Amino acid sequence: MDEIPFLPVYADIEKAHKIVGKYAHRTPVLTCKGIDRIVGARLFFKCENFQKVGAFKFRGACNAVFSIPEELARRGVATHSSGNHAAALALAASMRDIRARIVMPENSPEIKKRAVAGYGGIITLCTPTLAARESTLAQIVAETGATEIHPYNNFHVIAGQGTAAKELLEDAGEMDLVMTPVGGGGLLSGTALAVKHLLPGCLVIAGEPAGADDAYRSFHEGRIVPSEHPRTIADGLLTSLGERTFAIIRDKVDDIVTVSEENIINAMRLVWERMKIIIEPSSAVPLGAILEGKIDATDKKIGIILSGGNLDLGKLPF
Amino acid sequence: MDEIPFLPVYADIEKAHKIVGKYAHRTPVLTCKGIDRIVGARLFFKCENFQKVGAFKFRGACNAVFSIPEELARRGVATHSSGNHAAALALAASMRDIRARIVMPENSPEIKKRAVAGYGGIITLCTPTLAARESTLAQIVAETGATEIHPYNNFHVIAGQGTAAKELLEDAGEMDLVMTPVGGGGLLSGTALAVKHLLPGCLVIAGEPAGADDAYRSFHEGRIVPSEHPRTIADGLLTSLGERTFAIIRDKVDDIVTVSEENIINAMRLVWERMKIIIEPSSAVPLGAILEGKIDATDKKIGIILSGGNLDLGKLPF
Repeated sequence: MDEIPFLPVYADIEKAHKIVGKYAHRTPVLTCKGIDRIVGARLFFKCENFQKVGAFKFRGACNAVFSIPEELARRGVATHSSGNHAAALALAASMRDIRARIVMPENSPEIKKRAVAGYGGIITLCTPTLAARESTLAQIVAETGATEIHPYNNFHVIAGQGTAAKELLEDAGEMDLVMTPVGGGGLLSGTALAVKHLLPGCLVIAGEPAGADDAYRSFHEGRIVPSEHPRTIADGLLTSLGERTFAIIRDKVDDIVTVSEENIINAMRLVWERMKIIIEPSSAVPLGAILEGKIDATDKKIGIILSGGNLDLGKLPF
Repeated sequence: MDEIPFLPVYADIEKAHKIVGKYAHRTPVLTCKGIDRIVGARLFFKCENFQKVGAFKFRGACNAVFSIPEELARRGVATHSSGNHAAALALAASMRDIRARIVMPENSPEIKKRAVAGYGGIITLCTPTLAARESTLAQIVAETGATEIHPYNNFHVIAGQGTAAKELLEDAGEMDLVMTPVGGGGLLSGTALAVKHLLPGCLVIAGEPAGADDAYRSFHEGRIVPSEHPRTIADGLLTSLGERTFAIIRDKVDDIVTVSEENIINAMRLVWERMKIIIEPSSAVPLGAILEGKIDATDKKIGIILSGGNLDLGKLPF
């Protein structure tokens, strides 16, 4: 039998919330009658697109950074990421006044490099392969003693991400169903921990792009199926599950459903047009699942975590 | 001497707020540290892009519709408009359960016709000239006895638009300066009435596209200069001032400044990227004026009314 990974429980989310509540925005929960009429349900959108660095990722990074013992913290933190986690870790580290070393593929968009540098992150570029990213990071950790903060397969990151669902239920009350997108599973596993503790009868279901359906297959096959050649506009959802996130998801999540690219884009446009807020494609996946008829939504009260709002406005799909 | 038009005063805004507060959203006031750093000031954005029908226009239309005596109201309301006022009037009328007859140019975008029809408005199409719009409307008013509600040069519309600034000051406290865009002047005149009563020391300044600078010229020449061949992406700001709005603006507004198309687009993109909210180009004009250096903003506390969020997502300027 495999070794059982060390997993957070609900008490860790409460503990995380004491930290995250101090540094992160308590983002609003918005509703939209126009969308409710279209889907025949009552939707409550937790707006992590308004979170610091524009994504829920700040919660996990913040909890991880502030949970490191002082002596270790002085040596800084490190990760490899080209996305929201990199910016989130850089900002959280700057708030604790410690160094964040970020390994980024050399072909990362300039705008992302500038964002990380703008938050004070120290960037090391590497060739754009997973092997190069991991070996470059390992070298930095060995040289500096920095603590590696994985973007999702990390105890404190999972607990931190769970604070969004905790706030959602506190602010919008009981739900029949809470939905998130799923990539590496940090948001989904944290959400499931929070919801199943606070409201055991509430379903937790994730939406995943059909073109990057590794979590869907992992969930239904009962083992981690790696993501291979994922293709989707939802660029935050390309990664595979980790052992920690998968262990929680297998235990606590009710279902994972897939969504076509067309319905991801339809859902994103619907939110932009009706709610006048900007969400990135990954955020639109749960609503896309409802539009696609993959969820029995009729007359239900449904919470949806909008994961972020970072995208290139020059490259919109409509 | 010209006849002095019948003008609202602050008490009319208070009265309007009793009506508008019942039917409209109390929209949030948002801040953004990133934009504050760029401009060196503290900005408070009153988000009328989240208002019903996606624009402040609902406030004025709502106040006008609910201020009509019952006997007259039964004959309905009418206007000519191809923009936000048409949708706003249709929705407000449907809330009072009376008819709204809207004259629209036959070349209006399908999406705008659908919006008006969706709110229950009865559309009459006409040839796309001002003369045809006015004569078609006059005929409808003569035949039905409907009350004409002008989009801005109307006592109750001006008072209704003033409720946005009243809420802004109530929710965000004292300001050094409040800014709006200016087209026909309904929002600007209502805002000036509210601000100068509640906070006499606070400046009121409007931004106007340089390509549609009739209000700028009217203000500085002391007479209404009609808008001729206006060209700007801010399609809500093409109209000329009315006699009522001009009388208030001349009396209460401190300045009107012009903004280049480039800075309107820069400001719009800045709000989209940093605040993750969708605003239409007209809403971006005041921030554009600050970016262009037309306003002495340094270290000031500035309220900006974001007028709306309706635009064609398929035709973005970036």
